[in-house]
This record gives sequence, C-alpha cells and structure tokens, in this order.
Amino acid sequence: MKEISNLMNFRPQIKVVDATLRDGGLVNDFYFSDKFVQDLYLANLRAGVDYMEFGYKASREMFDESQFGKWKFCKDEDIRAIVGDNNTDLKIAVMADVGRCDYKKDIIDRADSPIDLIRVATYINTIPAAIDMIEDAHAKGYETTCNIMALSNAREQDLEVALHLLGQSSVDTIYIVDSYGSFYPEQIARTAHTFLEICGQYGKEVGIHAHNNQQLAFANTIEVVGDGVNFLDATYNGMGRGCGNCMMELLLGFLKNPKYNIYPVIQFIEKHMTKLKEEGVIWGYDFPYMLTGILNQHPRSAIQFMKNGRTDYTEFYKELLDRD
Amino acid sequence: MKEISNLMNFRPQIKVVDATLRDGGLVNDFYFSDKFVQDLYLANLRAGVDYMEFGYKASREMFDESQFGKWKFCKDEDIRAIVGDNNTDLKIAVMADVGRCDYKKDIIDRADSPIDLIRVATYINTIPAAIDMIEDAHAKGYETTCNIMALSNAREQDLEVALHLLGQSSVDTIYIVDSYGSFYPEQIARTAHTFLEICGQYGKEVGIHAHNNQQLAFANTIEVVGDGVNFLDATYNGMGRGCGNCMMELLLGFLKNPKYNIYPVIQFIEKHMTKLKEEGVIWGYDFPYMLTGILNQHPRSAIQFMKNGRTDYTEFYKELLDRD
Repeated sequence: MKEISNLMNFRPQIKVVDATLRDGGLVNDFYFSDKFVQDLYLANLRAGVDYMEFGYKASREMFDESQFGKWKFCKDEDIRAIVGDNNTDLKIAVMADVGRCDYKKDIIDRADSPIDLIRVATYINTIPAAIDMIEDAHAKGYETTCNIMALSNAREQDLEVALHLLGQSSVDTIYIVDSYGSFYPEQIARTAHTFLEICGQYGKEVGIHAHNNQQLAFANTIEVVGDGVNFLDATYNGMGRGCGNCMMELLLGFLKNPKYNIYPVIQFIEKHMTKLKEEGVIWGYDFPYMLTGILNQHPRSAIQFMKNGRTDYTEFYKELLDRD
Repeated sequence: MKEISNLMNFRPQIKVVDATLRDGGLVNDFYFSDKFVQDLYLANLRAGVDYMEFGYKASREMFDESQFGKWKFCKDEDIRAIVGDNNTDLKIAVMADVGRCDYKKDIIDRADSPIDLIRVATYINTIPAAIDMIEDAHAKGYETTCNIMALSNAREQDLEVALHLLGQSSVDTIYIVDSYGSFYPEQIARTAHTFLEICGQYGKEVGIHAHNNQQLAFANTIEVVGDGVNFLDATYNGMGRGCGNCMMELLLGFLKNPKYNIYPVIQFIEKHMTKLKEEGVIWGYDFPYMLTGILNQHPRSAIQFMKNGRTDYTEFYKELLDRD
C-alpha cells in the first residue's frame, strides 16, 4: 500500500503534459481552429500545466500537407503564431515518430525554435533509431523523451534491454505508453517498477501515457504516480485516438500541488470541447474499444467498427477472437 | 504490490452481483419491459453471474405504485413470473432501505419466496435499524448483506464501531458503498483494509459497490479484489444512478474464473442496452458527475444539471464550491 502522504501532499517533481492537440489530432486529422489552439494554450498556462504538446513533426515527404491540419507537421512558424516567444513557464513539446519524421531537416536548433521538448515515439524494436533521433535533438539543445508504445505487447526481457540502451543515451525521460489500454493497475505498477528501477540507475525520469479502453487511463496514471512516475500525460475531456486518454480534469482534480488549477480546464471544456462533440468529432470510452483493450489489440478495428456505424458487438467480438 | 497470481489465477470465493435492475432502475424509475428482465435473467445465468438484484422492496405506503415500475417494489409474484422456481445457481436478491421498507410485512419467509438474499442499505448513523432488518430477514431464512452507503463521508471511528456492531449481528456480508464515486484506489484500499480486518474477526464477507464519477468504479473494484473483497457489484453497461456503476463487461473481462462468460453480456448489451440509450435513458460518466465526485458530494445536483440540459460547467462548479 502506498503512503497516505502521497494523497494529501504533493511531489513537486511531477509534471503534467497536455497532449490534447497531438493525441486528439488523431481524431480530427489535426484540424483545430486557431482560436481553439490559442485558448488551449491560455488554459494550460492558467491551469499550471507544465508542457503543451502541439502535435507531430510528421514528414512532409511521407504525408500530404493538404490532407491534414497544420498540427500534424508543427512548423515552428505555426507554433510561434500561437505562443509568440512563449516567455512563460509552460514548455512546448512536439512528437516525432521513428520512421515518419525528417528530423535532421525539420527539427532546427532549439535556440531558433519555440519548441522545448522533442518526444520521440517508438516501438520496442526500433530503439536504436529512436536513440539516433534523441541524440540529434539533444545535440540541438532540446529536452527529450522516449515514448515506448504498445508496451503491453513487449516482452520484459526486451524491455529491460531497451531501458538500459536508453539509460545510456542522452534522453531525459522514458515513457510507459499503454497504446492499447490493456494494462490493469497491478500490471502497470509492475511495469513502472521495472522502469523506475532501471531508469533510476541512469538518472532518467519516467512518464506515463495511458489509454482509456477499460476506463483505466486515469486509474493507471495515479497508480504509478504513487510509485514515483513524474511525467503525466493527459488531454482535455480525454480527447485522443479511439477511447482517448487520461482526462486532464480528473488528473488536476487529483493532484494536490497548489500550482495546478482546475478552473481554466473547466472553462475550456465548456467553451470548446462540448462544441467539438456537437460538431460530430467522436472520441471517448465505448464498447468496441473495451473489447480491443481486453484482448490487448490495436484499436484500429474498433475505430473502423465505430466509423461504419456498426452495433453488432457479438459479431465484432468473434472477429477479434479470430487471430490465427 | 499485490501478488501476480491474483491476476493470472482466480479466487473461487468471489461472487458477482448484477445490480442492473436496482441501480439502473434509479435512472428510469424502474420501468423495464418484461422482455428486458427475462433476457437479463437468462444472460446472467449464462454468464455465470452469482446474484441478480431485481430492485427494491420499497414501502407501498411511502411510495405510490402508479409512479414507478414494478421493480421498485419487487413483489414476490412479479419475480416469480420471471424466474419460476429458479432451479438454477443464480441467486435472487432485493434491496431494502432502512426507513423505506415495510420489511416485517412485505418480506415473507424465504421458504415461500423466490428471493435468496436481502440487501439492507443504510447510512452509518442508522446501523441499529439496519441490524433490526437483518435479524428479521435472517430469522426468515434469508442470506443478508448490509450496504453502508456514502462511506466517503463517514468518519473512521464511526465506521469501526459500525463494523463491530454488524460483526456481532447475523449479517453474512458487509458492503463498502462509494455512493459519491469519490474514493481514489488508494483510499478504497485503506477502507477495504479496515473492513477486512474487522469483518474477518467475525467471519463476515466484504463486498464493494462503486460509482463511476471519476471513472474509477471498475478500478476501485479490482483494487479491493486483490485485497480479499469477495462480493462485487456490477451493472450491464454500468447502468446506474447518474454516472453509473462498475461495468459488468469490464468486470467479467477481468475475472479469470472459467465459470464466468462475457459473451452473453455482450449479446445482452447489443440487444437491449443500445436500444435503451437510443430511447433516451441517460446514464454514464459525464462531466457534472465528475465534479460532484471530486468534491465528495451527493450526485443529485449533477443529475438535476443534466436534466435541465445545462452545459455551463463553470457556473455549476461555483455552485458546488459554495457549501457553507
């Protein structure tokens, strides 16, 4: 059992990362209005959020700019149009996917960029490529994280090797990513234990990015907070791919550091998120996502099921079980 | 950290209680079609559910029968019309509220009734009245539980006294009820610890009934399962007052006892719950319930807010903060 002081008091090392534009962008192809992004930036500032992730630095050679909103590409000038010189305590982050980012060209020196943090997203089998990106970003002056996706499908032996490799790199923070929303709290606690033990040897911080397939995104996040995980991803109203993420409003309702303030989050949700849902943008816990979560599968089949307007859950379940 | 064997193996003492008609009835004034109730009974049978709660034994002197569906009153003949002699492993439960049940008259001998279990619901300050009902039901041959509601507002000193009083009664199982959906997993684990310690001295089982205000109903349920709580309430699709309860589908997806089967649950949800939602019956996690949960308040103001079609969350939040 964790210490009760963790619930009544707070750990100043905890950092809250708003991933609404990035993970939420996967829902609406990154088509957010400028007003939405400006207001989100202001809400994060007033809420005491530590990092705001604007989107991806996706390769413009691989992806057609006319098919996506600008936050899939996060050009420095687009970020600057929102944040100016960002003379604030809120740091700016973007995500760079292994194999889908022209990082040598598209990520310039931090001194010339509004971005503070490069988050490198990778699967367990592409850690060397991730480290190459991390070292590139580090050399350019950025803070870095490495977000290891789909961890519920990774073997623990591989994970330990990966964590030692990353421990020897320049990365600052290593993330547990439960891409499939498949972990139960006891399991994520064990995973966090492995992370904290190895990362601790190298002086690295640990983060968590959860998905809500089994309504456990918030529960899993606060489970590992109690164990020493300090970087916490959340999104407003949980907006994110499929069933979405840990909700910012739940997280700030839980954290006791007086620097955090839930009121601007409530304001933003009232003004923007309700409208987004009315416009037909769909995310959040629903039955098909639960099934892929329980079965530890990528949610793409559930997303397709929802898009097709299907409600034949029994047929869908049988399709999911047929995995030979 | 709990033992990994709890996740891979199972504890045969665990009992799953379907509370859909009872807590769900609070959403639609207990107006379920006979077909719904029949199919739910069959689904529970096939899913391996241990108890099915049909509703309340509410006083017909206090409540007008014309204002509610029949499951608010759970006459024995109405239950029998669904279950016949119920020669099955699925036991039948009803809830009896302290102060709102004419138990001496309305609860007849078990030998003449289809009911197996009387669940006595009480607040912490009416334990003696609850015990009077428990002893009455026990003398008539029933299994009994005592469900202590609104525990997040009870002082631990009072709780310990209450548990010792109940320990000395004939009750079989004592329930942790998180009426306001306000407990975090660490807190519910501590509460469960107190329950298990005192109830263990008297040979009583412990149960949990959770609400989903902070999307923690399932998480809190499986948190305490790991500690030895054996009676687990759940409802199909989480149907229950306000934000609802621990979802049956999530719970059966988690439990490893091969006697449980999620498929009939999926079938029932596909056939009935989707339709219920389309007909305009509203329950499940939503923002206003989260706010009452965080603030440890009764959800009635959130339910009213939703009924009035309000979306001014900031005003609502300020109303909730004004509690002098």
